[in-house]
Amino acid sequence: MPSDEHGPPPDAGLLSPVRAGTRAEAATSDLAYLAAMLDAEAALARAQARLGIIPAEAAEAITAAADVDRFDVAAIARRARGSGNPVVPLVADLRELAGAAGPHVHRGATSQDIADTGAMLVAARTRRAVLACLDRALDALAGLAARYRDTPMAARTLGRQALPTTFGAKAANWLMGCLEAREGLASVPLPVQLGGPAGTLDAFGDRALDLVAAYAEETGLARPVLPWHTRRTPVAGLAAALAVTAGALGKIATDVWLLSQSEVGEVAEAAGAGRGGSSSMPHKRNPALSTLIRSAALQVPAQVQVILAAQAAPHERPAGEWHAEWQPLRECLRLTGGAAETAADLLDGLEVSTGRMRADLDGLLDVLGGDPGPGAAAALVGQALDAYRRSRG
Amino acid sequence: MPSDEHGPPPDAGLLSPVRAGTRAEAATSDLAYLAAMLDAEAALARAQARLGIIPAEAAEAITAAADVDRFDVAAIARRARGSGNPVVPLVADLRELAGAAGPHVHRGATSQDIADTGAMLVAARTRRAVLACLDRALDALAGLAARYRDTPMAARTLGRQALPTTFGAKAANWLMGCLEAREGLASVPLPVQLGGPAGTLDAFGDRALDLVAAYAEETGLARPVLPWHTRRTPVAGLAAALAVTAGALGKIATDVWLLSQSEVGEVAEAAGAGRGGSSSMPHKRNPALSTLIRSAALQVPAQVQVILAAQAAPHERPAGEWHAEWQPLRECLRLTGGAAETAADLLDGLEVSTGRMRADLDGLLDVLGGDPGPGAAAALVGQALDAYRRSRG
Amino acid sequence: MPSDEHGPPPDAGLLSPVRAGTRAEAATSDLAYLAAMLDAEAALARAQARLGIIPAEAAEAITAAADVDRFDVAAIARRARGSGNPVVPLVADLRELAGAAGPHVHRGATSQDIADTGAMLVAARTRRAVLACLDRALDALAGLAARYRDTPMAARTLGRQALPTTFGAKAANWLMGCLEAREGLASVPLPVQLGGPAGTLDAFGDRALDLVAAYAEETGLARPVLPWHTRRTPVAGLAAALAVTAGALGKIATDVWLLSQSEVGEVAEAAGAGRGGSSSMPHKRNPALSTLIRSAALQVPAQVQVILAAQAAPHERPAGEWHAEWQPLRECLRLTGGAAETAADLLDGLEVSTGRMRADLDGLLDVLGGDPGPGAAAALVGQALDAYRRSRG
Amino acid sequence: MPSDEHGPPPDAGLLSPVRAGTRAEAATSDLAYLAAMLDAEAALARAQARLGIIPAEAAEAITAAADVDRFDVAAIARRARGSGNPVVPLVADLRELAGAAGPHVHRGATSQDIADTGAMLVAARTRRAVLACLDRALDALAGLAARYRDTPMAARTLGRQALPTTFGAKAANWLMGCLEAREGLASVPLPVQLGGPAGTLDAFGDRALDLVAAYAEETGLARPVLPWHTRRTPVAGLAAALAVTAGALGKIATDVWLLSQSEVGEVAEAAGAGRGGSSSMPHKRNPALSTLIRSAALQVPAQVQVILAAQAAPHERPAGEWHAEWQPLRECLRLTGGAAETAADLLDGLEVSTGRMRADLDGLLDVLGGDPGPGAAAALVGQALDAYRRSRG
Repeated sequence: MPSDEHGPPPDAGLLSPVRAGTRAEAATSDLAYLAAMLDAEAALARAQARLGIIPAEAAEAITAAADVDRFDVAAIARRARGSGNPVVPLVADLRELAGAAGPHVHRGATSQDIADTGAMLVAARTRRAVLACLDRALDALAGLAARYRDTPMAARTLGRQALPTTFGAKAANWLMGCLEAREGLASVPLPVQLGGPAGTLDAFGDRALDLVAAYAEETGLARPVLPWHTRRTPVAGLAAALAVTAGALGKIATDVWLLSQSEVGEVAEAAGAGRGGSSSMPHKRNPALSTLIRSAALQVPAQVQVILAAQAAPHERPAGEWHAEWQPLRECLRLTGGAAETAADLLDGLEVSTGRMRADLDGLLDVLGGDPGPGAAAALVGQALDAYRRSRG
Repeated sequence: MPSDEHGPPPDAGLLSPVRAGTRAEAATSDLAYLAAMLDAEAALARAQARLGIIPAEAAEAITAAADVDRFDVAAIARRARGSGNPVVPLVADLRELAGAAGPHVHRGATSQDIADTGAMLVAARTRRAVLACLDRALDALAGLAARYRDTPMAARTLGRQALPTTFGAKAANWLMGCLEAREGLASVPLPVQLGGPAGTLDAFGDRALDLVAAYAEETGLARPVLPWHTRRTPVAGLAAALAVTAGALGKIATDVWLLSQSEVGEVAEAAGAGRGGSSSMPHKRNPALSTLIRSAALQVPAQVQVILAAQAAPHERPAGEWHAEWQPLRECLRLTGGAAETAADLLDGLEVSTGRMRADLDGLLDVLGGDPGPGAAAALVGQALDAYRRSRG
Repeated sequence: MPSDEHGPPPDAGLLSPVRAGTRAEAATSDLAYLAAMLDAEAALARAQARLGIIPAEAAEAITAAADVDRFDVAAIARRARGSGNPVVPLVADLRELAGAAGPHVHRGATSQDIADTGAMLVAARTRRAVLACLDRALDALAGLAARYRDTPMAARTLGRQALPTTFGAKAANWLMGCLEAREGLASVPLPVQLGGPAGTLDAFGDRALDLVAAYAEETGLARPVLPWHTRRTPVAGLAAALAVTAGALGKIATDVWLLSQSEVGEVAEAAGAGRGGSSSMPHKRNPALSTLIRSAALQVPAQVQVILAAQAAPHERPAGEWHAEWQPLRECLRLTGGAAETAADLLDGLEVSTGRMRADLDGLLDVLGGDPGPGAAAALVGQALDAYRRSRG
Repeated sequence: MPSDEHGPPPDAGLLSPVRAGTRAEAATSDLAYLAAMLDAEAALARAQARLGIIPAEAAEAITAAADVDRFDVAAIARRARGSGNPVVPLVADLRELAGAAGPHVHRGATSQDIADTGAMLVAARTRRAVLACLDRALDALAGLAARYRDTPMAARTLGRQALPTTFGAKAANWLMGCLEAREGLASVPLPVQLGGPAGTLDAFGDRALDLVAAYAEETGLARPVLPWHTRRTPVAGLAAALAVTAGALGKIATDVWLLSQSEVGEVAEAAGAGRGGSSSMPHKRNPALSTLIRSAALQVPAQVQVILAAQAAPHERPAGEWHAEWQPLRECLRLTGGAAETAADLLDGLEVSTGRMRADLDGLLDVLGGDPGPGAAAALVGQALDAYRRSRG
């Protein structure tokens, strides 16, 4: 990327530490989006070359030119104001860089084809990172559920100690939440978008459907039944799956925060250099990772709202609803991805005080006047671990 | 329901005409919820009788007593303020009505078991109504796509005429949106909830898992791997599927509204007694059904936001997050259900002016200086109709 | 209201106990809205009679006919589906009931004039109830701040005990939050709406502005600079003020919930018949009122989202955005009103355990190795009480 | 800012062209936030020096060290993960840079004091830019209202031509919306935050209230009655005012989009190099600026939702709710600011076709069978222009 002296300074996650420095952050940066849109242009050219729509050398030249380092992302962002989307200036620059192949760039496509396909590529790449973090979290959760299967503690409802449960049962519930979220997220189809200006693939005649198939192969994305420029199920479904994931992680973080209160102290986040510190109170050890995860879980649902509402959009391309999706989808991806990476770190290092659990429970049993026991907690842990193992199968 | 002279007056949909008088409204009323919670209590009793936990006669007596007409919904609502949920007064009344079987009512259950299972029963019943309406809409859409497969019209992007498409292609996209929404909604699992106060099924010993299975059978709902009182995937997944459905319907309504503008006039809602009228302008024919559908599509995503955010809730039962789910879930169900019924009505009667389409397109072709034709529109219609037929099995 | 045998059953707050039986619920029922719309029609007639636009007897007859008990709210709701709003059938029925004065009903007005003015009347009436509850809460809060000005307790950040504060300082912050919210809510202008079909007051010639003034006087609402059918500041500002109020109340409820945890126990909600009970655990005393208030605070912001987003609406009346405002505004009013009434009850009966506060603080001071004291807590309490007294002026 | 080779790449607005390159973008960058937090630290030091709490030279040294160019924003963002907020690493670096004055840095403050005060400084600086853009828009709107006061056009409701109005009346309504929004935004108090770890100003003894006053003077922000770390009215009120502003601008953009449809053509955005282009259709002239503004208006309300919901937060500092405010508030500021700058550009260049207005209206008058005239449209324009002039006072 050429240096841009007068461009806006970067957003490095200063206001969003939950994703600062995470894999999801890197996978969703402006540069990552720009690279994905260029990948979409290159894949389209190669798919067209496979079908003889453009010369093979043109596809090669376009692929070579579609190198994100040769583009000025800040300048493209500003030039996007003229047309309302960044693909128009991107195409102009790519045509110039592609030299003789320039006229073959973006053949028969419309801006939305490239922006949507680019977004799906970003989503696919980020999803890989999210799923890897979820797998790490799931592994830790299965370990907690197994190890503490029979460790008694007080269940709490409305903040009040209720009856005995086990920490394993609590972890089993966390595990199932993450497992269901992971399955939902992994199964969301991420299709290419190709429709041309009117969504009719008008430039491609009889080869239209074959081109969509080739385009899907070149990108590695799914092949849609129809262009989806006006039917936002892929984006809505992805956003919803991310919110369910953020919610499952937020549930864990909420419990860890509450269990690590001074007066409870049944769990604690791992201590360590630069962890849990306060700017004013050296005696404190804060549940910082839980806090970060919760900050994400509280934001993602509102971003999903924007995306869900944008479905009801005019005609073959709306004047705003589509454009309003972009940043919220990115936030869903990077907040959830950041939360997943943070949760994996949190669970790897979670400290469990079975002594405090026992002491708090004893207080409850005194009130109850007897120990009703943990019920079917162990059997429930078994159910969850079975489900987890099947999913690994 | 005993008359309640001092109770609050009813909400009859005056502010929500999209669902006034619809099947979804009836299926989601306070009475419907109360009946579903009573059904949950009765099913639990019968399941327990099957396992010998309570006497068979007690289950019969409880089932007989669990008759919604014997309960005062407004009074239960007000008494719910004492405990924060309506199950506490409901159980008190049911125990009294069940006479000698009273002590067997609600055995080993907690309020949330009944409220959540009741909500899932309401959801299952409402879903049947919604799916039936969607089927009616899908049938109409398939008809539109087939009939107008080759009817040319102008595609519009950012409100400007862009290139030719066909009305069939537009209808095919509407069809695919509703089809995907229908499949998503139909496949959401709706499980029973049973965990007891701590989520450990503590009252049931070795028979805990069998009881959950029997309870699922008695209610007709799905059997969950674990109790989900603290893992809100069933509610979150349902809400998201409803929002995708509302969005798919809202997309259609938005296009119909815009295509029925005075200056466009390419489609019109069916005229009829009391349809599309204005309180002040007798000459107007308003897209009233589209307006109603859009009013729902604009509200549902915000309700989903509440539900998604409520996932990150404390411990074995939160002090507010769970309670905040109830009304938004009901709104998701009845707004989406109302929109589906309204959309079926709209599509059944949609009037299409191929002449206006032709005239508008001619203006565009003049600007273009030639007719690029509808591209692969017909093939895309074919793809969508194939997908629809496959879904019909 | 004529009985309506086949109408939908009532919503009595079963899913929304925070407002069940409250004054805000009664003030925002469907009947209350219908009555307010009829009041708007009657006030318009009287205003027109004052200016000689219609005969005085007609205004009297219309006022007499505009009796909500003579209208069938459920039927009007269903008939609203034809036009998209309930004013069309309401006007039809009112014309019939007004007999010879029928032709003078709704003279020069449009549906939105009546629906918006009706909503403002409902808002004004509900606001009175909300402000009265807030005043009760403020009084209790001032009492808590004064009484516990010097009562030391641990401040908690991220769930961990941090440094000493006083319970009075905490109450002073609650007080300021409610005071600012009250002032914001009380100062929102609630204007009449009158514009006629095009917003030009076309039917009234030179008397247009005088009629708006007379209409404002007859309703008791504010006089707007311009009709606001297309400029939703009154609704958006009201919704935002309600959300700030719900947030201020939700803050209190959140603290009460956390301070009443079993392991903290520094405050407790008042015990009493039917209060804080559990359907399964007789030993528990739940923070039920806090839970109700929190359920409202978690829902209101999403309803506000719908209203804020509806500002960007098409032309002189949108096809959906306006209609989407109605139910969310009602929810903002009745959830916030219910929360205010519940908070007044909660604060009136709040039990404070200075002993538990002292014991928890002693534990913290041990960790700190000394007592830094409550700093300027007493001075801050003084600041807040001064501000409160000034507001009572 | 030291170069950070391994840091995340920048967000340059690629997905948010509405703010790319705008003043609001620059005023809300990560660097701008970091600079504002450093300004808060420096102002605190100077305020403390004025009261003799720290030496004057220390305040000078801290002010000199608080130079954003000496800090690595990306590294601070990543180190913020340890504590959950960026102030902890910022203070560590500032202490090091301040040399001998290091121990006087952040004296008696807590992270939230600096982060909240920094956010208010960013808000104050961004607000200046937003208000300047609004003033430009207001001036253009007043011009449109005056020039087209008597220019007849069709009013449209539910997308259908209804009755005559004037373009001046439409512009007058736009003007009043922006004027009310401007007044609301300008009047939001933006206070300093200073409370120390427990909100008790414990480190400052009798000088606590004087210090807050001096701190307010040094920053140029307002002096609060109490610390507001637990009472988020300043943030909630600001966010709501921004949403009302975004809504008022979104209303204009929605009307411009619809009036510039091919079939209507009554207004058009100014043409120009790089304006309104399409990547595939050279014949199109898109309402690109309206699209950008609408993209903002559709996102801001959801960001406000997060902020409003975060009010109900635990204790003296929450574990997540506060952290969840940061990014949404930034988005509210920069999306609204971007929309305001874009709207000023749009309105400056808006092209009005009185001929198309006349032609469309003639069609309506044919249907009406006569011309009811524009009613009080001219008088309403006069009302709005008077209000505008008074506001300029």
